[in-house]
Amino acid sequence: MGSQYEPLTPETLGGRLAQIGAITDRLGTDPASWTVREVGDGNLNLVFIVEGGGDSVIVKQALPYVRLVGDSWPLPLKRAFFEYHALTRQAARDPGSVPEIFHFDEEQALIVMERLHPHIILRQQMMAGEKVKDLGKVLGAFAARTAFRGSDLSMSAPDRKADVALFAGNVELCDITENLVFTDPYFNAELNRHTPELDGIVAELRADIDLKIAAQHLKRAFAARSETLCHGDLHTGSAMVTADEVRVIDPEFAFYGPLGFDVGMLIGNYLMAYYAMPGHIADEAAQSDYKHWLLDVVAETWETFREEFSTLWRTERNGMLYPAALYEDQGQGFAAEQALQELLHEIFCDLLGFAGVEMHRRILGLAHIAELDEIEDTALRAACETKALRLGRHLAVNRAGFAGMDAVIAMARAIDEGDGR
Amino acid sequence: MGSQYEPLTPETLGGRLAQIGAITDRLGTDPASWTVREVGDGNLNLVFIVEGGGDSVIVKQALPYVRLVGDSWPLPLKRAFFEYHALTRQAARDPGSVPEIFHFDEEQALIVMERLHPHIILRQQMMAGEKVKDLGKVLGAFAARTAFRGSDLSMSAPDRKADVALFAGNVELCDITENLVFTDPYFNAELNRHTPELDGIVAELRADIDLKIAAQHLKRAFAARSETLCHGDLHTGSAMVTADEVRVIDPEFAFYGPLGFDVGMLIGNYLMAYYAMPGHIADEAAQSDYKHWLLDVVAETWETFREEFSTLWRTERNGMLYPAALYEDQGQGFAAEQALQELLHEIFCDLLGFAGVEMHRRILGLAHIAELDEIEDTALRAACETKALRLGRHLAVNRAGFAGMDAVIAMARAIDEGDGR
Repeated sequence: MGSQYEPLTPETLGGRLAQIGAITDRLGTDPASWTVREVGDGNLNLVFIVEGGGDSVIVKQALPYVRLVGDSWPLPLKRAFFEYHALTRQAARDPGSVPEIFHFDEEQALIVMERLHPHIILRQQMMAGEKVKDLGKVLGAFAARTAFRGSDLSMSAPDRKADVALFAGNVELCDITENLVFTDPYFNAELNRHTPELDGIVAELRADIDLKIAAQHLKRAFAARSETLCHGDLHTGSAMVTADEVRVIDPEFAFYGPLGFDVGMLIGNYLMAYYAMPGHIADEAAQSDYKHWLLDVVAETWETFREEFSTLWRTERNGMLYPAALYEDQGQGFAAEQALQELLHEIFCDLLGFAGVEMHRRILGLAHIAELDEIEDTALRAACETKALRLGRHLAVNRAGFAGMDAVIAMARAIDEGDGR
Repeated sequence: MGSQYEPLTPETLGGRLAQIGAITDRLGTDPASWTVREVGDGNLNLVFIVEGGGDSVIVKQALPYVRLVGDSWPLPLKRAFFEYHALTRQAARDPGSVPEIFHFDEEQALIVMERLHPHIILRQQMMAGEKVKDLGKVLGAFAARTAFRGSDLSMSAPDRKADVALFAGNVELCDITENLVFTDPYFNAELNRHTPELDGIVAELRADIDLKIAAQHLKRAFAARSETLCHGDLHTGSAMVTADEVRVIDPEFAFYGPLGFDVGMLIGNYLMAYYAMPGHIADEAAQSDYKHWLLDVVAETWETFREEFSTLWRTERNGMLYPAALYEDQGQGFAAEQALQELLHEIFCDLLGFAGVEMHRRILGLAHIAELDEIEDTALRAACETKALRLGRHLAVNRAGFAGMDAVIAMARAIDEGDGR
């Protein structure tokens, strides 16, 4: 390793990684005794599970193109560098939230990390109708801790500016989000696809001026509000879970962005899962129960975010913003509380907007989600998707007009019950 | 040059610059025939006028500390690097607006540039009660062109991200703004000073919770909204004028910030000059006429900014934001116009906020302005400053509540006429 970049294969992996102490410490020094399985990770990279000596590790290597599309769409290897740096920061800001890193090879764009076992992707857990204990608590806290501790509320200004400069290099991954999330879904872009039965509502949304303006305002916020280091792709495919444990993976889209970006994308994905359930749970009572749980997760995620962010505000506000010198030190602690409420309200409005466009791009754009895509009955799928599109539109356009997450959940339910038109 | 950094003196300057073709081309090759005058530039740097062969140039060199304070406050030499890069971008985005650069020496933190002659600092022109033709038009257009053309509305996203990374290094100059503009004026910070007669209103403002929250919201916007390359210090000391020409100088505070930052700071400075006039023009009719002109300049600056920004939006919107594919190409050009109005409204609110805090920090903080400081009668000075402080407070706190610049000007007048309490 350390030589010219070359993609790994199951056949060459053992020979190429046998010199890395962080691996041989775990799997033993004889690569012939290792078992290597390529497991993919969806859209972008090579991922292998390597087992040996009773232990196992994950080897993730970037490819110089988008795996989902092929080598016609080149994508730089340096995304592994950003993933590595994001993982180290997330581990520091929310200890235990992400896989432990054993080895990073920048030239090979390769990260060797803890294998989460027997965890499965949250998306799969949801499609199986299996709940996860404290899901909203864990991910809400993750989003709050990484948001707060990566911002000028906590970091020293020089450190944050240096980090902004570093992550500004993640251009191509940001470009994917900028185009695929905020623009392509709203016109007839080449890479789009959607369920044919959606033609009517798609035409309606693509003529919807308020929506298209909202989407571009949100894109501007995405591109220019470098408030904190965001995961950048925090959806139900970026969490691995058991019935009672949750870990976050795959931050290669990491960038400095709005405080509400990650939690918004996450909540958009919960809401899509909510509408997708008729395609996965046939039993009506079980389906209803699981959908109820998903909306509870939405509420719990935001409630936990608020609580955790507020706790950090009161106990770790050591950055240059909203200094105690102006408030608490003047006997005006309630002023700091007022500033916190105003900031949380801003985050809330933003997160609804990001949730809304995420719900659109996963149905109208290039990268869909399995929860919806795997519903084979296209009429049923389109019915689920239509509800998600309608809610997404309301969230994006009217993001400043909701009194709280209760109101959002009530609207999600009303649309589900046929009140969508 | 090009060797280890050493500050220039009038005595050594000739010998040290005699090898630079860009200088000798203008001044001749015999430095003994040159005349060197140190002219200072206020707070930070060494500035020399070097004359020879019937021509002249400006030599500006950064010092490794804040000149205003002394070597107890170190300040990195690399600010000359940021000034150089800002000047080249401003020259490209608004041709003719800034001095031509003849030579840049990064190691010596030294820029040799066009001498603006017979221009004087706008501040001096104002204190002399002399008008400047089209002042608002020129500076409004400068602010609009540099804002628009330095943003994702115009630049390619990779180019802008690379530039954000570059200017993220201007940490120490940003730190000055972050502390001296947004925080220090609002508590009893060590570097503050103010006219003694202001003690009452200073106590009032420092107890004003809404104001202190607004200032920190604005600080957050300053620090994290990397929308465009701002001049960073666009006040009446950063423009050089004749009766009919205006040029912008000294962008060493350049940083990526909000679209409305420069125009806001500028308008805050016009408004302070407005309130300072009783200290400079004794004749009542002349004073009234000049104050009227200053308010016209406020209106003209914003009107020109709006018009120029709108023209660029319609003709040069080639960046990734608000693409024509979503609007004009769909026969919905009015949607792009609506987005423009919403963005201009946001810029307007922001600019009022930045104007408000600028009006405070120049009276309560470390770096004052001559328009007010040079009023020797402290009772008169305090009366002028009180009006500026009151308007600044209204602008910062109620920045989202003004219908337009007319309403701001009306409030400026009302406060001037005694309606400030």
